Amino acid sequence: MSNRVQRVHVSLTHSGAAAGAVPFYKTSAALLSHFCSDPALLHRIGLPQPCKLKQLPAAMPSDLETAMQLLITVFHRYAAKDDHNNTLSRRELRLLMENELSNFLKSQKDPHTIDKIMKDLDANGDGQVDFEEFVSLVVGLSVACEQCYQTHLKKTARQ
Amino acid sequence: MSNRVQRVHVSLTHSGAAAGAVPFYKTSAALLSHFCSDPALLHRIGLPQPCKLKQLPAAMPSDLETAMQLLITVFHRYAAKDDHNNTLSRRELRLLMENELSNFLKSQKDPHTIDKIMKDLDANGDGQVDFEEFVSLVVGLSVACEQCYQTHLKKTARQ
Repeated sequence: MSNRVQRVHVSLTHSGAAAGAVPFYKTSAALLSHFCSDPALLHRIGLPQPCKLKQLPAAMPSDLETAMQLLITVFHRYAAKDDHNNTLSRRELRLLMENELSNFLKSQKDPHTIDKIMKDLDANGDGQVDFEEFVSLVVGLSVACEQCYQTHLKKTARQ
Repeated sequence: MSNRVQRVHVSLTHSGAAAGAVPFYKTSAALLSHFCSDPALLHRIGLPQPCKLKQLPAAMPSDLETAMQLLITVFHRYAAKDDHNNTLSRRELRLLMENELSNFLKSQKDPHTIDKIMKDLDANGDGQVDFEEFVSLVVGLSVACEQCYQTHLKKTARQ
C-alpha cells in the first residue's frame, strides 16, 4: 500500500473520528437501512427481527453498496460462531476461507496457507482477527486480482 | 489504518510480489474464471466477447468473491469512460459516487464533498485515482459502517 493510500485511509476514518468529524458514519446509516429493509440479510447476519434504527428511504443498493454489505455480512456470519462476535478466531477464519475462498485455497500448494495468513493477520497474537484486519486481506486479494485483470486487458488490446 | 493492518497488506501484495512469490495472483485466475463465464458481467466491464484465459472449473462465486468482483467491476465500469482505462478522472469519480454512493452523497451537507475526496485521494495531483486508491475509499466507508453496525449490535444486545 503506497503512502498516499495510507494517508487517505487514515483521513477517512481515524483522523476524522478523532477530530469529532465523522461524516462517513452517515453512510453507515444509509447502508444499515438496506440491512434493516432486507429480512433475509438480517437473518444471515444473525439479527432475528427488523432492527429499530431510524430508517432511511429504502432503495435498491448500488453494486458498490452491495459489495460493502457483503464484506460486513460475510465477516459477521463467521464471527458470530463463538462468543467473540466482532472478531474471527483461527477456527472461524478457517471456516470463512474454506467456504468463501475455496478457489484460492485449491490453488495453494502449501497446506499451511490458512495458518500463515492467520499468523500474518494476528500480529498481536491474541488469536482474533477484527473487521479492519479482515478487510486488509480482502484488499490484498482484490488488488492482486485487479492487477491481473489489467494485464489481461492489455493483452486483449494488443491482439 | 493500524500499523499491523498496513503490515499485513504489504506482506500480501507488494512484498510478496517483490520477492517473486505471488500466490495471491492465483486467486485472480479463479476470480477471472467467473468473469469469463458470465457474459453479462463481461459486457458490463467492457469486454465484448468471452476472453481467452485458461478457464478454471466454473462455479457460483461465493459472497466474498462476489464482493471482490463488484469492486473491480464498478471501478472499471467508470474508469473505461475515457482514454485512461485503468484510472478514474475527477469526472469519472463524480459519476461513480453519484450513481454508486448516492445515499452517502445525499447525507452530506457540504456541496464540495466529491471535490474534497478527489483531492484527498489524488495526492500527486495528476487528476487520476487508481484501483488501490479507490479501494482505500471503500475500506474507509466499510470500516466506518461496520463500527456503526457493531454499536447497533451492542445496543440491541442490551435491550
